[in-house]
Amino acid sequence: MTPCPVVVRKYGGTSVGSVERIRKVAKDLVNDHHRGLQQVVVVSAMAKATDQLLNMALQITEKPRPRELDMLLTTGEQVSIALLTMAVHHLGCKAIALTGAQCGILTDENYSRAKIQNVDTAKLRNELCNGNIVIVAGFQGITPSQEITTLGRGGSDTTATALAGALQAPCEIYTDVNGVYTADPSIVPDAKLLDVISYEEMLEFAASGSKVLHPRCVEIANKYNVPLQVRSSFNDVPGTLIVKEDRLEKVAITGVTGDAKICRVALTRVRDVPGIAARISRSLADAGICIRLIIQGIRHDKTNDVSLILSQQDAERARDILQPVAREVGADDVLLDTDVAKVSVIGSGVASTPGVAGRMFQALASEGINIELISTSEVRIACIIRRDQLDAAVRAIHREFDLNNLERKEINAG
Amino acid sequence: MTPCPVVVRKYGGTSVGSVERIRKVAKDLVNDHHRGLQQVVVVSAMAKATDQLLNMALQITEKPRPRELDMLLTTGEQVSIALLTMAVHHLGCKAIALTGAQCGILTDENYSRAKIQNVDTAKLRNELCNGNIVIVAGFQGITPSQEITTLGRGGSDTTATALAGALQAPCEIYTDVNGVYTADPSIVPDAKLLDVISYEEMLEFAASGSKVLHPRCVEIANKYNVPLQVRSSFNDVPGTLIVKEDRLEKVAITGVTGDAKICRVALTRVRDVPGIAARISRSLADAGICIRLIIQGIRHDKTNDVSLILSQQDAERARDILQPVAREVGADDVLLDTDVAKVSVIGSGVASTPGVAGRMFQALASEGINIELISTSEVRIACIIRRDQLDAAVRAIHREFDLNNLERKEINAG
Repeated sequence: MTPCPVVVRKYGGTSVGSVERIRKVAKDLVNDHHRGLQQVVVVSAMAKATDQLLNMALQITEKPRPRELDMLLTTGEQVSIALLTMAVHHLGCKAIALTGAQCGILTDENYSRAKIQNVDTAKLRNELCNGNIVIVAGFQGITPSQEITTLGRGGSDTTATALAGALQAPCEIYTDVNGVYTADPSIVPDAKLLDVISYEEMLEFAASGSKVLHPRCVEIANKYNVPLQVRSSFNDVPGTLIVKEDRLEKVAITGVTGDAKICRVALTRVRDVPGIAARISRSLADAGICIRLIIQGIRHDKTNDVSLILSQQDAERARDILQPVAREVGADDVLLDTDVAKVSVIGSGVASTPGVAGRMFQALASEGINIELISTSEVRIACIIRRDQLDAAVRAIHREFDLNNLERKEINAG
Repeated sequence: MTPCPVVVRKYGGTSVGSVERIRKVAKDLVNDHHRGLQQVVVVSAMAKATDQLLNMALQITEKPRPRELDMLLTTGEQVSIALLTMAVHHLGCKAIALTGAQCGILTDENYSRAKIQNVDTAKLRNELCNGNIVIVAGFQGITPSQEITTLGRGGSDTTATALAGALQAPCEIYTDVNGVYTADPSIVPDAKLLDVISYEEMLEFAASGSKVLHPRCVEIANKYNVPLQVRSSFNDVPGTLIVKEDRLEKVAITGVTGDAKICRVALTRVRDVPGIAARISRSLADAGICIRLIIQGIRHDKTNDVSLILSQQDAERARDILQPVAREVGADDVLLDTDVAKVSVIGSGVASTPGVAGRMFQALASEGINIELISTSEVRIACIIRRDQLDAAVRAIHREFDLNNLERKEINAG
C-alpha cells in the first residue's frame, strides 16, 4: 500500500521537554522525510506536564476518578503533538497531528490501564500516502462509546509498538539513554552498550529492574514480530536492536540487572496440601498486587516456606491481605522483609551453557554476599540478597563474565 | 423528557482560575443540585491557560496552522472540565465531564472560527436523567470527520447558548462583572446595573464596546429565544436578564457605551456612480476586515466622501488595501484617522421617542465636544468624536438621561 519504507518512532517526555527540544526532533524528522522515509511519530507529554496535571487533580481530591483523570492526563500528549506538528510545518514539511481517537486506537473501558482492542490504520495510511509525517499522541485511546482512556504504565511505548505491529513496520524508541547496557552504567562504569538482544532477554531486563522499556511494549513487539530499536534522541549512537532470538548468535549472558525496589513476604511452615499457592496468588491478584517471584521449598517436616517477591510499594498491603490467608492455611507467621534486593544475570544461553549458575554464585561468594533465594528461567538466574550488597553484586558478576568485552552479532538480518 | 427544571450555566476563565475557585463553583453547583435543579455547566479554560498555550505555539512558529492550534487550545477546556468534575465528585455528588465531541457539538471545518451545525443532545439528556451534573468543555466542537475545532471569539458563551437553545432551557452566564450597566462603571461611577434588557439592545451594547457578552452568543439566544442571565460568580447579585423586547416596558435609553478601539478611514471625493460602496466593502471583506460603520455624504460637486469605521487593529492594513481601490474609483485620497472614538446611546425607544437625538447632541455640545459623524439605527445613535473626549462624552450623556435613576420592568414574565 505504501511505496516508501515506513517506520514508527517514539519520543519520550524528555525528548520533547522544551520548545528547543521539540525543534530539534522536528529537524531530525524533516531530514529523514527528505531522505524518503515515511514516519509515524508517537509522542509523550512534555517532561513534567503529566506530573503537573496530576498534582492539580490531587489538590482537588485525593481520589480522582479514573474517567476524569484520564480526560485530564491525555491533554498532555495532545499539547505535545500539536506543538511538534507546528514545528515540522515551520520547517516547510507536511505533517498532521492525530489524537489517539483520530488515529483509531480502540481500547476497552478500563480507565487508567486500558488495553488496546484494535488499531484501525485506515486514516494513518491515508495521511502517510498524502505525504504527511503523522504525529500521534501516545498513551491514549478511545472506547467504542467515545470515552477517552489511557494505557497506563509504559503507555507511549505501547502505542508505538502497537502501531508498528498494525503497520508491519519497525519501531524506534527514542529516549534519554543510549540503549540497553550489560549493566546499569551508574553502578558499573565500564558496562557495554548492547547492539542486539532478543525479546525474551529484553523482557527479563525489563522485569529485573531495567527502566529502558516497559515489559508490555516488548511483549507486543514479540507477538507481532516488530523489530524494536532503542536509542537516544540526544546523539547518533545507534542504540540497541531487539529482535527474535533465532536472528541472534547465542551468548551465555548479555547483562546483569539489579532491582532494589522489591520486598519479600514469607509464609512460614505452610501445610503441604494442594491449592495453597493458588489461594495465596488469588488473594493478592484480587487486590491488584503482582507477584514477581514465588519460591517454595519443602522442609523435612512436610511443611513449606512460601516466599513471595513483590514490589516494595505493595509490602504493607500484601502483609495485611496475607494475615487471614496464613491463618486459613495453618501457616506459622507472615514475615515481611523490606531490606532485600534482586540481582539477575540475563542471556539466551543461560539455560544451555553449563556453569553459568556456578560462576555467578562463586562471584557473589567471593564478595562475601550471601544468597537467600534463587530462581531460574530459560534466560535468567535471579538471586535474592541483602539490599546494601546489591551494587557490589552487580559489579562482581559483570566482572566475572567479562561483560565489558561482550561481542554479539545478528546472524540473520532478514 | 426531563422531570426537573434544566438550566445551562457558563463559567468563564476567571471563575475557574484556581483550585480554590474551582472548589467554590463546585460547591455552588452541588447546592443547587440538592435543590432539585438539573444543571449543564459549560466551562472555559482556566484564566491564563489559553494564553500560555498560545505563547508556546508562537515560540515555535509565528503562523501556527489553525488545525493544530485548535488541537492545542482545546486542551485548556478539557483540563478545566476534568478538574471541576473531580471537585463535584469530592463533594459526593454525581457529575460527568464531556468534551465538545462527547457532548455532540458538531461544527463545520473552519478551524479557529467554526460554526455549530448541530447539537446532538441525546448523551446530554441521558446523563442528566442519570442524575449527573453535566460539565461541558466550552469553545470546542468536532467535525463529522472527527476533527477538533474551536468556535473562535466568545466561544464558551456560544457553546452555552447553543446548548440552552437545543435543550429549550434558560442560560446563565457567570462572569467577573455583576451584569450590564447603563455605562462602564470605571467611567461613570454611579452607572446603574440593568435588571432587564432586550436582545436587540444587548447586541448594540456588545457591538458598541461593552465586553460583557459576545454578539454571537446574543444572536443565538435571540434566534432560539433563550433567556440569558448575565451575573457574577463572585457574589449573589442577580445580574442582568436578556429577553425578547415584547416582554419589556419600553424606555427611551438603557445605556451609553464608549468605544475607543476604532479608527476612521475616509476616501475623499469619490465619483457618485453605483457600485462603489460595494467595491470598497468587498475588497475589505476579502481581507477579513469587518466594516463597523459606513457613512457616505453627497457633496455639492456630485462626489462623495466615504467614511469607514473599522477596528483600530485593521487600520494600516485597510489603508493599504484601499489605496489601489481609491485610484480605481477616482478618489482624491485615502485618509486614516486613528484618533477617533465612538459614543453610542442604546435603547429600544430610541427610534420612537422624539428628542433623544437632540438631547444627546446638546449634551455633547455643552461639553464642547464636536460630533464628526452620526449613525443611527432602531435602537442606537452613535457619534464619532475625538478620542480624548470620550469619557467626558459618556458621562455627559449618562447625566443628561438621568440613567443612574433608571427603572425598568419586565411586563410579560411568561
